Amino acid sequence: MHGSNAPETQLLGYAGGRLDRVDHIRTNSDLLAQAFASPLARRVVLEGLEPVVEGGHLAMEPLPADAWIEHHVLLGVDEGQRPIFAELLADTPDNVMPSARSRSLVSEVPGHEAALYGTARSLLSWHARHRFCSVCGQRSAPAKAGWSRRCGSCEAEHFPRVDPVVIMLAEHRGRVLLGRQHGWPQGRYSALAGFVEPGETLEEAVAREIKEEAGVAVHSVRYVMSQPWPFPSSLMIACTALADDDALKIDETEIEHAFWCDAEGVRAAMDEEEGAPFLAPPPLAVAWHLLRHWLDGQVAGRTPSA
Amino acid sequence: MHGSNAPETQLLGYAGGRLDRVDHIRTNSDLLAQAFASPLARRVVLEGLEPVVEGGHLAMEPLPADAWIEHHVLLGVDEGQRPIFAELLADTPDNVMPSARSRSLVSEVPGHEAALYGTARSLLSWHARHRFCSVCGQRSAPAKAGWSRRCGSCEAEHFPRVDPVVIMLAEHRGRVLLGRQHGWPQGRYSALAGFVEPGETLEEAVAREIKEEAGVAVHSVRYVMSQPWPFPSSLMIACTALADDDALKIDETEIEHAFWCDAEGVRAAMDEEEGAPFLAPPPLAVAWHLLRHWLDGQVAGRTPSA
Repeated sequence: MHGSNAPETQLLGYAGGRLDRVDHIRTNSDLLAQAFASPLARRVVLEGLEPVVEGGHLAMEPLPADAWIEHHVLLGVDEGQRPIFAELLADTPDNVMPSARSRSLVSEVPGHEAALYGTARSLLSWHARHRFCSVCGQRSAPAKAGWSRRCGSCEAEHFPRVDPVVIMLAEHRGRVLLGRQHGWPQGRYSALAGFVEPGETLEEAVAREIKEEAGVAVHSVRYVMSQPWPFPSSLMIACTALADDDALKIDETEIEHAFWCDAEGVRAAMDEEEGAPFLAPPPLAVAWHLLRHWLDGQVAGRTPSA
Repeated sequence: MHGSNAPETQLLGYAGGRLDRVDHIRTNSDLLAQAFASPLARRVVLEGLEPVVEGGHLAMEPLPADAWIEHHVLLGVDEGQRPIFAELLADTPDNVMPSARSRSLVSEVPGHEAALYGTARSLLSWHARHRFCSVCGQRSAPAKAGWSRRCGSCEAEHFPRVDPVVIMLAEHRGRVLLGRQHGWPQGRYSALAGFVEPGETLEEAVAREIKEEAGVAVHSVRYVMSQPWPFPSSLMIACTALADDDALKIDETEIEHAFWCDAEGVRAAMDEEEGAPFLAPPPLAVAWHLLRHWLDGQVAGRTPSA
């Protein structure tokens, strides 16, 4: 039943980082200075927030002699013992949403290099939008090798955001609920998704989002997998759930349309067949892997129909 | 094998909220004004960030005639169709960490009321520490019924934080790894834990934290359950993992001590027996439930030894 696109080899984008994050160096100014001064040290080459690819790898460069340690984040140490840095942005980026270059990177460089880029992108986006202390309004400055910011005025310490997002497939009698947002490419459908709010479990967030967006009550939420999504700094948490019934009541401010799709339709879309009922999300997205997971479960749980 | 404390009835603290969060009202100023003006509307009674209990319930009061809608968060609508609000703090709290009152609340009121309190506490803490725009340093103001803040100067919109934390039991040959932090009550041990960082999956965060804190490499990470933890706004994500070996190399800046504990020791601690090898975390914490989950799996997977 598996399609021709060899799905098991599709990489989950921005996951699979291999850097040792060397937490102990972040808070030790001597060790940090040593890492920065090391002839092995490299920094990620970026154009604003965008990656640069050279010879099938994420471009890296030695640290210039006039580089300031205070303007760099220590991402970690790689398998070749090279300390890897990224330079903070001087300007605030106009847009922290996914760009064509940041997406295509995933298929152009090894997976762990895309993960390294994603980490840099999330941290740089966060610094750029947190130059001021949210407690007192004064300027803050990077601290802990770029893993926090400290306010010199009120002494508050601020940490990079990681925003948990639930992304989920509700299932009802062998069909899954797919939705599309306004402005997506024609025919594209995916799993529903939304930010986890304060005061709820993941399971409660899954149920709330499906109810809000599609009017469907669910139970039996199961965690499947997770993915860092650096636009700007989400943690995608992929789940399945069982729906009580299949009546839809769509919130059109949130999504444009939703429908229940059977396994054959999902398979056709994942295999990019002509006439498939929808255009699947790209393999770099966790939604693709969640659909694959669901489809594999359908196949494993039944007598094959083909 | 189950202890005498009827563990299945122990509530997970701050989870199990029952409010309809009425997302559609947050962005509709007419509906919001109606909810605020409703004779059914109530607000949570707080002393600073601390809860007040009356007759076994979280104290609520009608909205005073002179209350300002701009100073309130709409938490949601309860099962009695009452819109439930919380008033933003005028001052910045000194301490957003767990207090005795906020902990004892969990055993004093129904679980869903402790969840409602937790949601309020997280949101109020966030507003109190985000009065200024982190992009430009100017004052921001609450928007969307308290579910965001908007900067009138640069127009940036800011959303409440939810900080994902992994909390996990590494297992090796029938024993689990327990650690204690500096300053904990004497004898207290729990699962290791740490914040998820930008650029990593949950599974990668689990492996990194156990490696950092205890020097142990793990694989086969499995999600167990989650919990909102309102001090100030964490999302606890509880997992198990299998350790490659049991040699420990403890980072004493992070934890004071760690050891491997067998099922009998965990059982004795959960049952609060004299002579138990450690003092278990309280049942309101997800760590207690994670230990229970592991212990139940041990019992189910073996011939009982007692």
